[in-house]
This record gives sequence, C-alpha cells and structure tokens, in this order.
Amino acid sequence: MRILSESERTYLEQIFVKLNFSADDAKFLADTLVDADLRGISSHGINRLAWYAQMVKDHTIIPTKQATVIKQRPGLVLVDANQNMGQLAARLAMREIIKKAKQTGIAMAVVRNSNHFGTAGYYTRLALEAGLVGVALTNTRPLVVPTNATTAFLGSNAFAFGFPAQPHPFMFDCATAAVSGGKIQVKDKRGETLPGEWVVDKNRQVVRDPKEAEEILAAAAFSTDQKGGGLLTLGGLFEENSNYKGMGNSLVIEILTGILAQGSISADTVKGKHDFSQFLLVFDPAFFGEPAKLAADATRMLDRIRQLPAIPGKQIWIPGDREYRLLAQNRQRGVEVDEKTYAQMKTLGEELGVTLPGSR
Amino acid sequence: MRILSESERTYLEQIFVKLNFSADDAKFLADTLVDADLRGISSHGINRLAWYAQMVKDHTIIPTKQATVIKQRPGLVLVDANQNMGQLAARLAMREIIKKAKQTGIAMAVVRNSNHFGTAGYYTRLALEAGLVGVALTNTRPLVVPTNATTAFLGSNAFAFGFPAQPHPFMFDCATAAVSGGKIQVKDKRGETLPGEWVVDKNRQVVRDPKEAEEILAAAAFSTDQKGGGLLTLGGLFEENSNYKGMGNSLVIEILTGILAQGSISADTVKGKHDFSQFLLVFDPAFFGEPAKLAADATRMLDRIRQLPAIPGKQIWIPGDREYRLLAQNRQRGVEVDEKTYAQMKTLGEELGVTLPGSR
Repeated sequence: MRILSESERTYLEQIFVKLNFSADDAKFLADTLVDADLRGISSHGINRLAWYAQMVKDHTIIPTKQATVIKQRPGLVLVDANQNMGQLAARLAMREIIKKAKQTGIAMAVVRNSNHFGTAGYYTRLALEAGLVGVALTNTRPLVVPTNATTAFLGSNAFAFGFPAQPHPFMFDCATAAVSGGKIQVKDKRGETLPGEWVVDKNRQVVRDPKEAEEILAAAAFSTDQKGGGLLTLGGLFEENSNYKGMGNSLVIEILTGILAQGSISADTVKGKHDFSQFLLVFDPAFFGEPAKLAADATRMLDRIRQLPAIPGKQIWIPGDREYRLLAQNRQRGVEVDEKTYAQMKTLGEELGVTLPGSR
Repeated sequence: MRILSESERTYLEQIFVKLNFSADDAKFLADTLVDADLRGISSHGINRLAWYAQMVKDHTIIPTKQATVIKQRPGLVLVDANQNMGQLAARLAMREIIKKAKQTGIAMAVVRNSNHFGTAGYYTRLALEAGLVGVALTNTRPLVVPTNATTAFLGSNAFAFGFPAQPHPFMFDCATAAVSGGKIQVKDKRGETLPGEWVVDKNRQVVRDPKEAEEILAAAAFSTDQKGGGLLTLGGLFEENSNYKGMGNSLVIEILTGILAQGSISADTVKGKHDFSQFLLVFDPAFFGEPAKLAADATRMLDRIRQLPAIPGKQIWIPGDREYRLLAQNRQRGVEVDEKTYAQMKTLGEELGVTLPGSR
C-alpha cells in the first residue's frame, strides 16, 4: 500500500514526541525516515520504526540524552551520541564540520557511542545543501564473512558520497557488502530464490533460499555465538574475483568508525549496548573550481556514461539515478509501506495515541 | 631473475639523473620503484622504467619542470605537477598537507596536470611515517567497462589507505577494477587462462585468453577509437552481484581526481598529454585516541580476522600481509625482474651509459 509522505511525516513526528524525543529532534528523525521512503530505500524508512521504538523501550536508545561535542580542532570533531539516535549525533557532527570546513576547507567528525543513523546518504545531502561535498560512513552489526572465512565478522558498513550534478546530484550510498539485508527480504516477500553470490552458509556454500539466508543473518547479527555464514563481500564467493577488495573496503570503514571512535567494531556490537560509530567528512569543492563548472563537468561525464553502448535491453544507471526518479514519483503517489510495517504502525499508534495515516 | 634492491636503487638513480631529473628527484623516484619491487608490486616497479623513459623522450613527462602549489587554504592544497612525474608532485602535495594536518588535524590535496605516480600506497606510508593516516587516489587510462556497458570508460583508479598496526600497518592499496592489468600479464607469462570474471570483449563476453585480454586493454587505454571491451568493475560481470558498486567506487575516484583537478577524466587521458590527476588526504589519528592504543585496537581486530574459521586449506589474509612478507623476503633475496624488463634495462643502460646491475 501507499501513504502520502506528508501523512507519514506527521505520524512519525507525533510518535517520536510520544517516545520522549524533543519536538525538534522528532521533526528531524521523521525527516530522515520520510526521505529514505521517498527515495525507495524502504529498508531505512518507516520500516525501522518498530525497531527504533523497541530500542527506546529497552533503553538501548535514550531519547532525552543530547549528543555532545567532546573535543575539537580546526578540522576535527569528536562527538558522543550519548546513546541517543545516531541521526541526532550525526546532525550535530555535520553542523560542526560544515562550520569548520567553511573556515579551513575540510573537516571530519567521528561519532561514538551511537545507534543506527538511517541512510548514510542523508548526511552527504546535508553537505550538498551547504555547498560542500560529503562522505558518510557507519559500521553495523556483524553480517559479512571475510575472504576465505566461514563466519561473519565485518559489518555491512555503509559508504555514501555525494557530488553536485544535473538534473540531480551524483549520490552513491550503499552497503560495502555484496548486497544489503533488505534485498534478501524483498526476494523472500516475492517468493524468489537468491541469484548470484549473496549469502553463504557455515561451509561457505552459496545459499539460494531467502528464508535460510535471513536466519543466517539474524543469527550473525544478534548472537554472540557465531553459527557461521553471512553476507559475502563485494566481489562474491571467490578470491579470484578479488573479493578481498570488498573486504578491504569494509575494513577501512571498520577502522574509520569503531576503531577511531574507540567504540565497538562491528563484531562486538552484539554485546550489550548497540554502540555503533560513524564517520563524516566534508570539504569545499569551490576551492578547486567554480561550482557551476564542477557540476557541469560531472554531469557531462555521467551523461557520457549513460550513453555508452550497452548490452541489448539493458540501461546504464549512474548511482543516484534510481533514487531520484523514485523521489519524484513518490512525492506524487506516496511512499510504499508493506503490510507488516503498516500493522506495526497501527499497534504503535494505538499504544501511544497517534492516529494512523490512511493508505491512498 | 633477482637483483639486489640496493643495486636496483643505484641503477635507477643514475638513469633518472641521465634523463634530466635533479639528483634529489632521481633519488626519490628510484625509491618509489624500489619500494614497489620490494613489496612484490612488480607492475609498479622497475617494470615501468622503459615506459617512463619513453614518456620523457616524447615530452609527455618534462623532468625539469617543478611541481608547484597553485593555491591553498588551511586544510586544502591544489598542486600543479607541471607535467613532471606524478611521484614528484605527490611528494610536494604530501609535504604540504602533512604540515597543514599538524595544525588543523586534517588536510587534502588535489594534483593536476600530472603523470603516473607509482603505487598509491607509497604516499599513505609517507603519512604513517609522519604519524598521520592517509588516503591516496589516482585516475588512470580508460580500462574499465561500466555496469551493462560494452566499452571501457572508467579508469582502473587506484585507492590506498594505511593505518598503524603490528607487526606491520594495515595497508590497502589496489585498483578499484576487478583486477589490475598486471595480473593479466602474469597469467600470460605463465601460459594460463584467465579465471573468474576479469575482462570482457565488445559483446560483454568474458575473455579467457590473456593475449586477447591484453589486446583489448591496450586498445582501450591507448586509442581514441574505443573498439569495445575492457576490465570489469569489482563485482564482476553481473548486475545481480552488485557490479554497480564497483562502478560507484571507481566514479567517486573519477570525481575526486579528474573532475576536482579540472583536468582529464580517465576516458580523456588517451588524447594528447597524459594528464592524470591525484587526490591525497591525511588526518591526525592522535586526536581520537592515544596512538599506541589505536594501533593495538586495530591489531587486535585484524588478528581476530586472521584467526577466524576458514575453508579447509585456505588462509585469511589481511590487506598488506602479503606485501610486508615479500618486503622482508626481498630485502634479503633481492627483487624479481622479468627477462623483458631486464633486456629493457640493458638497452637503456647502454644508451645512457649506466652500468646494469648484475643478477644474483
């Protein structure tokens, strides 16, 4: 079913206020979820609300604690999320590094003691709105099996980067693993088997059944006792296809988040508090060239790629093309909400006295 | 055959001086090549000398022009390589941003109007020596076929990142493509077919014959008339294995090098001058934690990964493990030089009056 994004926004703002977030924080959190749903990134939209609410109830997330700047230098910031939502800490960190980068040209922040922060791309869009170019990284639960290993250890560790272009920015925002867990859920809902090389079992055999894959990932993500198996790195099953490069990408993020934050690496987020860490970086592209010229150059390059000869029947998509197309469509027709999520919204609405948005 | 690295160094320093580089520049250039050979990265060692010498002769590389800082802010530097070797411009850029990062905590540089700069990892090791963490990127000739496309457009675009650890740093240094061209040459020399998903032809069919693959890549890299085919992105042949993420990684580097430098994107380096661009970034990890603690934490994480359960008969390698093992071995036994390269060294030595190092 579909609901209008403005109804979704109103509902979410009210829910977050009832969950003890300030009105301002509730508004921001609602925006991060509505934005994900508008862009078709349902796995990071209202889909997550029941999980967030549960974490508030069990004190994994503490809505009344404010994120704070622990220390800073002209180009560096260390933020403590104080166990509140990752979104709120990342907003603070972005505000601080945007101010700094206006002075020095570049700044980076690390957020410790955090929780899930929504889509990484959201923060690179905040950078773009400020005329800057941004990178956003987060570690996650342990879901990914290193090259030649048989148990999960690495996070699916998100990477996002945005750069100005027309008719929309270049927007690369993805898990560094071969696929995200959300893609497996979609296959499950559609009753399809898993194609390609996505998930392996404890013997490093490719798993085709999405339900088996989901069980493997749930055990890997939420248990201190690793039973084996998990998502593959980008590059897939075999070393000969350089899957160690996918592992390398993931390890760089482990270092820039959990290690630099002096928090938990992905493998240890299964114990006690959530304890994710995030990394944010912005710089001023105007130093290197006139902004309109840089955007025009990027646009020309991306258009040339879109128009390259392609295999028959296939289109060449640039990162961001699909989500900006969905953004335009979903603003009109509303965002997609699956039955399970809508049922969770109904339960939570009744519990907290918030009116459920009607479907279109 | 093998030659002692110190003999290689002496030979290279003399050759570079004869090619009109200053004694200091010759020493640095020699070190970048010896370092690559010691680490077993033969594709970026003395193997490249004949190519560099040819580019000096045809004025693609101009040894007497010095790289200069065009402009700067407290955290940003723009360097013009002035068509000299990329190594020399990258050295200047690294010196500038290391100074800046000591002040502000973080700094980045873009190098324009450059040439090949050797291994990207070399510069991240310069950062480590200065107590900083570094990232180094470069664009390249057009070698890589975007997702669903049938002709090469993207560079194989190198990414390097180093972080302190024991017994050696974490050192991730690789082409963002599925494999580098050097791996194909190795298969050719050994008379083996290409495994996995490395290179496609103009119909996007996987190529098994290394000679056919080398012809495709040579045509893609050095001709303005694209005949089709090239290296695959990380993720391989199929969209279902998320090869668009490999394309995204490569595109981020295109933007941070050619576009930011206002130079050529990889696709346009086939025309006239070489015109590569580089991106360098360093930050001070000590802001986030006591350096020995950060290195110990990284070491602990990497050791846990090395010791994960693995498929029988396979070892789990961390990026950098192989090259530091080879570094220790090759310091003793000398570096490997293939027959073709040794013949080129002989010709060049005779031409310039430099004594050829003997094999061990």
